Amino acid sequence: MKLASLRHGRDGELLVVAGDLSRAVKVPDIAATLQAALDDWVRVEPQLQEVSRRVHAGELADAFPLDPSTLAAPLPRAYQWADGSAYVNHVELVRQARGAAMPESFWTDPLMYQGGSDGFYGPCEDILAASEEWGVDFEAEVAVITDDVPMGIAAAVAGPHIKLLMLVNDVSLRNLIPGELAKGFGFFQSKPASAFSPMALTPDELGEAWDGAKVHLPLRVWLNEQPFGQPNAGVDMTFDFPQLIAHAARTRHLSAGTVIGSGTVSNTDRSQGACCLAERRMLEVLTYGAARTPYLRFGDRVRIEMLDAAGHSLFGAIDQRLREYRAQ
Amino acid sequence: MKLASLRHGRDGELLVVAGDLSRAVKVPDIAATLQAALDDWVRVEPQLQEVSRRVHAGELADAFPLDPSTLAAPLPRAYQWADGSAYVNHVELVRQARGAAMPESFWTDPLMYQGGSDGFYGPCEDILAASEEWGVDFEAEVAVITDDVPMGIAAAVAGPHIKLLMLVNDVSLRNLIPGELAKGFGFFQSKPASAFSPMALTPDELGEAWDGAKVHLPLRVWLNEQPFGQPNAGVDMTFDFPQLIAHAARTRHLSAGTVIGSGTVSNTDRSQGACCLAERRMLEVLTYGAARTPYLRFGDRVRIEMLDAAGHSLFGAIDQRLREYRAQ
Repeated sequence: MKLASLRHGRDGELLVVAGDLSRAVKVPDIAATLQAALDDWVRVEPQLQEVSRRVHAGELADAFPLDPSTLAAPLPRAYQWADGSAYVNHVELVRQARGAAMPESFWTDPLMYQGGSDGFYGPCEDILAASEEWGVDFEAEVAVITDDVPMGIAAAVAGPHIKLLMLVNDVSLRNLIPGELAKGFGFFQSKPASAFSPMALTPDELGEAWDGAKVHLPLRVWLNEQPFGQPNAGVDMTFDFPQLIAHAARTRHLSAGTVIGSGTVSNTDRSQGACCLAERRMLEVLTYGAARTPYLRFGDRVRIEMLDAAGHSLFGAIDQRLREYRAQ
Repeated sequence: MKLASLRHGRDGELLVVAGDLSRAVKVPDIAATLQAALDDWVRVEPQLQEVSRRVHAGELADAFPLDPSTLAAPLPRAYQWADGSAYVNHVELVRQARGAAMPESFWTDPLMYQGGSDGFYGPCEDILAASEEWGVDFEAEVAVITDDVPMGIAAAVAGPHIKLLMLVNDVSLRNLIPGELAKGFGFFQSKPASAFSPMALTPDELGEAWDGAKVHLPLRVWLNEQPFGQPNAGVDMTFDFPQLIAHAARTRHLSAGTVIGSGTVSNTDRSQGACCLAERRMLEVLTYGAARTPYLRFGDRVRIEMLDAAGHSLFGAIDQRLREYRAQ
């Protein structure tokens, strides 16, 4: 089942989308919004699945052609966005480039930060920044949406709490990060709103590419229409999603609609390219002694997508430009 | 106007409460939940104010006696909880006790962390922890709720975005903090669910104690029925609420219902006591060379309240016990 949210009010209007992303149908009689569906998932999911079957079979007269530019993020605002950094290879590389050793514990204790969730970008919305000097970067990731997760859950039984999957562009302001992290309280200004893929998918939509814990497919990134990276999200993921959920739930319950991100997808096989500018820049630092690729300039375009084995887009594409924002 | 949320479903049921906290009335025809009211505040607020006037005047037959133990947090879950650390004196003291100098920039650049907001404790709900070894502490704070705030807003014009005020118990797991902050990504497991006062107040309810930026009243804390601290929230607050809002909104919009906290209230006048165990322990370290006051034990009770000049409770009391939690 593929779900999306039409831009409408603060929470969008829930859509059930045909598998090939061509058509969609509103389901106000089942759930007005995706959050409402997640709040009552056990009751609602079978009804949505039946609509999904029918829209795919072309049985619904009120289905309409889907235009991705009309979509909000599947959850236009959420009660929780917790982003891991599960590709430890990426963390190690960043540290290596600045000559800092990585603590051994990073291989056994996940990194995770609490992100802002009160407003997400839709898949085709411009990224707003007041200045290029902020060092605007993209980070292509995979994320899951959970139902209610009890405090203290073990990773071994956390997997079934994953109800939906999405792609993320975790926008990062690289030049604000060092100062902010030096203060010790983590990211805040350096992590503005994130963007999500048009579609949120139930795990079954991924077929054999989903093993219950990781997505075994390349995550494809283009920068200004040029291929930028396609590392496999199932490779070099040190902490899988059930482990990330267990980490997030160690000292508190997680509420339905919690979004948990993988962190920037990164493979040790450098031939696959990167999922963020920072990683390419780190490799340039290690190779040439200095970074050559600039951070995003106003007008730059980033596209993030994942294709199935047959080459069809699974989640639709995140396709954004950086645009200058002027405060009133 | 004083608002509260009766425990009901995920978002509670909005109540308008009489000024003396004795009676309340449901307002389903105006707004079912506080978040719904905040989403449409300009339209809804005058209607709620009229109900407030009538419940206070005893004109509403469907008003009922209010029992604080039936209340959820005013926002049982929120889209954003961003907590500042505006009483820099508190930060300096914590650093002093561990022999670390505080950067000068801490006096001009606010500390703020992104907190989890997917589930808050009601004012009288037990704090759950799997172990006393986590070092469970309370932090008594003041918080504001904003409407929609545009990115890049100046502090000078941020004040009118404050729609409601509350008290907070920002529960902290002190023994998890050093390890977590050393990882560089800020708080996550060390900041479990926070609790909020029974009432959320419009600023006018504070009269002269609210100057548009700070609350000039003592914040009173009791530990196991003994007075623990009563520092004045309007004293030694280095960054006021409009400054904290501007800090939070520097690189992104804030959505209606954003909760912004002051951080632990703390006065340089030590005779007023403290708003958290950590601060008392730091003073013990500086005085005796070691902390003498333990962190919370199971069964310990913390009460947080603010009284007006006449001695009446403004927000009702946060009144919680620490209880052992066993994962299933």
